[in-house]
Amino acid sequence: MSARPAVRPGGRSARVQESVHRAVRELQAEGAALTVPLVAARAGVTPSTVYRRWGDLQELLSDVAVERLRPDAPPADHGNLRADLEHWASAFLEEMSSPAGRSYIRDALAGDPEGPNAGRCSAYAREQVEAVLSRAARRGEHVPEAETVMDHVVAPMMYRVLFRPGPLDAAYARELVATVFYRLMPLP
Amino acid sequence: MSARPAVRPGGRSARVQESVHRAVRELQAEGAALTVPLVAARAGVTPSTVYRRWGDLQELLSDVAVERLRPDAPPADHGNLRADLEHWASAFLEEMSSPAGRSYIRDALAGDPEGPNAGRCSAYAREQVEAVLSRAARRGEHVPEAETVMDHVVAPMMYRVLFRPGPLDAAYARELVATVFYRLMPLP
Repeated sequence: MSARPAVRPGGRSARVQESVHRAVRELQAEGAALTVPLVAARAGVTPSTVYRRWGDLQELLSDVAVERLRPDAPPADHGNLRADLEHWASAFLEEMSSPAGRSYIRDALAGDPEGPNAGRCSAYAREQVEAVLSRAARRGEHVPEAETVMDHVVAPMMYRVLFRPGPLDAAYARELVATVFYRLMPLP
Repeated sequence: MSARPAVRPGGRSARVQESVHRAVRELQAEGAALTVPLVAARAGVTPSTVYRRWGDLQELLSDVAVERLRPDAPPADHGNLRADLEHWASAFLEEMSSPAGRSYIRDALAGDPEGPNAGRCSAYAREQVEAVLSRAARRGEHVPEAETVMDHVVAPMMYRVLFRPGPLDAAYARELVATVFYRLMPLP
């Protein structure tokens, strides 16, 4: 459904994207009832530019939500793998389970099911996990598979955020990391 | 947002729900562009009945989707826990990763975030898992915690269905069950 290319565009196309995304964020912050003509007017483009690029409002909101879920920094270095994973997982859970995080995830998932947006959310998490694991491997630490961390740390947290509303705390994130450490490491 | 009570209603209220749900399913099967007046006309109720009960179209579609995700039978008995879990997980993954399943999950999640619909999806899965585990315990088998199966079998499958589109097969479901068996059992 989306006319948006998979590769992030440059030049004029990038400027259009930035101004339209900014217009959406501003209007959302103002509590406005969003429409494509309203967003286009704020961004200084024609509505047809928005329809051509994003297809419809839902797809645009999905695209903006995914951008907001993009990590803005590599995972912090706490000196060892377990501490790095615990801190990253706790921060990820805190962000995703916040009201804003839950809202961005829902908007991201409301985009075209054949489109790339849900996959981009997952790719961001995987890049962060891989950064933590590569750093640990360079330190000479024994590391799990990235897929193990995705399946047994990231997935359980995201499942609870989406399907099991309720308090989610850092202790839960640390428990999942401990399960990977004590139960799911590859044999040395 | 939803005015729907948490307890499933009986009497006239149940008849309204059944006729409105049936109208949605019929119109969806016909490929109609759904609106509340169209659904109400097909169901033989007034639009205000629909608005009063469900709030809006999205909430109604979410409610219908959750009902379609309700399991229609207890998990089959294959004689031992591992076979029961493997068969159940494979069938669950096949259903959820089908185009219809993905569409129902997305509709279910598009309902009111403060409402019960996402939690009902998760509760259905948990009831099925508990049925499998209780039967195994009655056979005298060693069983994992239900939460372990939710976190390490159900959650990874649902995460992939939602965020990592691509082929998902029974081998993946069986691998997750094997991880629970070989790595995540409580000590006897």
